[in-house]
Amino acid sequence: MPVTAREWHLAATPHGEPTPGDFRLVEVEHPDPAEGQVVVAMIAMSVDPYMRGRMRPEPSYAAPWEIGEVMRGGAVGRVVDSRSPDVPVGALVLADAGWRDVAVLPAREVRVLPALDDVSPTHHLGVLGMPGLTAYAGLFRVAAFTPGDDVFVSGAAGAVGSLVGQFARLRGARSVVGSAGSPEKVAWLTGELGFTAAFDYHDGPVARQLRAAAPDGISVYFDNVGGEHLEAAIGALRVHGRAALCGSISGYNATEPPPGPRNMSLLVTKRLTLRGLLVGDHGDLRDEATAAIAGWLRSGELVARETVYEGLEAAVPAFLDLLRGANTGKMVVRLAPDPARP
Amino acid sequence: MPVTAREWHLAATPHGEPTPGDFRLVEVEHPDPAEGQVVVAMIAMSVDPYMRGRMRPEPSYAAPWEIGEVMRGGAVGRVVDSRSPDVPVGALVLADAGWRDVAVLPAREVRVLPALDDVSPTHHLGVLGMPGLTAYAGLFRVAAFTPGDDVFVSGAAGAVGSLVGQFARLRGARSVVGSAGSPEKVAWLTGELGFTAAFDYHDGPVARQLRAAAPDGISVYFDNVGGEHLEAAIGALRVHGRAALCGSISGYNATEPPPGPRNMSLLVTKRLTLRGLLVGDHGDLRDEATAAIAGWLRSGELVARETVYEGLEAAVPAFLDLLRGANTGKMVVRLAPDPARP
Repeated sequence: MPVTAREWHLAATPHGEPTPGDFRLVEVEHPDPAEGQVVVAMIAMSVDPYMRGRMRPEPSYAAPWEIGEVMRGGAVGRVVDSRSPDVPVGALVLADAGWRDVAVLPAREVRVLPALDDVSPTHHLGVLGMPGLTAYAGLFRVAAFTPGDDVFVSGAAGAVGSLVGQFARLRGARSVVGSAGSPEKVAWLTGELGFTAAFDYHDGPVARQLRAAAPDGISVYFDNVGGEHLEAAIGALRVHGRAALCGSISGYNATEPPPGPRNMSLLVTKRLTLRGLLVGDHGDLRDEATAAIAGWLRSGELVARETVYEGLEAAVPAFLDLLRGANTGKMVVRLAPDPARP
Repeated sequence: MPVTAREWHLAATPHGEPTPGDFRLVEVEHPDPAEGQVVVAMIAMSVDPYMRGRMRPEPSYAAPWEIGEVMRGGAVGRVVDSRSPDVPVGALVLADAGWRDVAVLPAREVRVLPALDDVSPTHHLGVLGMPGLTAYAGLFRVAAFTPGDDVFVSGAAGAVGSLVGQFARLRGARSVVGSAGSPEKVAWLTGELGFTAAFDYHDGPVARQLRAAAPDGISVYFDNVGGEHLEAAIGALRVHGRAALCGSISGYNATEPPPGPRNMSLLVTKRLTLRGLLVGDHGDLRDEATAAIAGWLRSGELVARETVYEGLEAAVPAFLDLLRGANTGKMVVRLAPDPARP
């Protein structure tokens, strides 16, 4: 039986901050699945900062999205029809299915998820998914974290940042400082997540607030923000300090190249290491990360908060609000109840 | 017998480009050497870009020099009087003796150099000294050079840069591109040192010239210049590219913080590594580096050119000219003939 899906397409290349007019909700009729394909009823989809980079005309780290294409991104759903022996009807799957309520996909492009009764399906988009692996690989491999480090995380209330800070605490950081964009987030970081200190970057120059929060400096920086945060962190890093650069959300909507850190010469004098990070390089760590993270979740030591928007119509507001920092923890869009867990 | 020495002292903290008035030549009477001291008749002294950093009032990577102190720096000389059994009269020694013609030093602060008839004493200030080890450790350890790399070196006609490019060639780089500040230097890099390509940074935007010289990009960058060069290199580095940051001479005389690279987000998308380098961290490589470099010198595969100024009076012009890029290869000041090699 043919399938009718509703999908968000890229309608225009945004200039600066994206607007609702850059997206279009369309109805698409899919024919019956072909041999090797599955039909997935989506339960939840992800919006992530990296998506802004894919909406540029020039290539980012992945090919840019074309006008008229469906918006891409991670999503979880249940298989409701299958023409593949590998992916049975009823399986919970993760796929780069994009912003839509039903997807017809090659079975080889979906990953069957373990049935974990105690884990919300949306966690596969967050703490047990791409953001979780990003935080894990970034902190432990790219920044070469070791117990006793003094860690600073920007965007610390976001999907990745909130995990980085907690991972550092759980593995023996001496201190963990976070920056975020609201008093509520700051209170959450120190109150619930166990950060040593946190500050609202609206409250004054980042360098000054970081100096107050970490008067002896830091040994590791995890950057989700770029710009002023990166410059402040370079100033605060001690000799042989390391920074994992994961994103620079402060510049994603910029229409001019943002100014760079004016203190790059400190990389020489303090022998700092700055290293960029994309999760796709670190798939070999997935099993290790999943085991560690699932253990922390079960023991209750790790908080995996989500900000949930309801319904496919909410995908665009969720994305725009994400770029404005409206989320605490992972931003997800719930599309439908899980048919297997009514 | 007391010793009269002439010494250059720091007379004032320079604002911007140093001027001759920032230095003062004074005569100092030293008493007879005490137990454990040696008297060294200097043969040659070094001027190096890092010295500009030590003339700042705020700490650089080492303590700043005080007004009225002797200018510091590497120098070679012959021991002419000794009250230490470890350092006999007649020994050729290297020490942080500074800008002076005679020094009275604790024997434990001088290093006795091997007697190499085929090596000029000044080479211990350059190719076999600090610049040689800097180039060696920076390229092979910090930038993790491997055969087949496409290397770009800025300040490529300088003491360190000219060695980096040649080391890369000698160890199997696929290509070596250098930038320098005059047509003569550019011709020297490609004509005598075996660089694949070179350009004069005065001839146009570095990014454009680098793109022309390395159309497929680079995998390793060795930075002696900072500023526009660093931004261009970040743009040219391929995925997983590495940069060793050794200096940023373009900013040493700056009175305002120089603008930083506007393309730092490429560190994320291309997963680049930028790492700072000071030679003091890499003393464990000295024997390995010396063996390799001495071998290349003997076989004639390595060119170790010097720009030599004559006489202690020339120390200040040598230093000021160095900061303006007047040297090709290592800049040294010859103070006196070697008493052991008349």
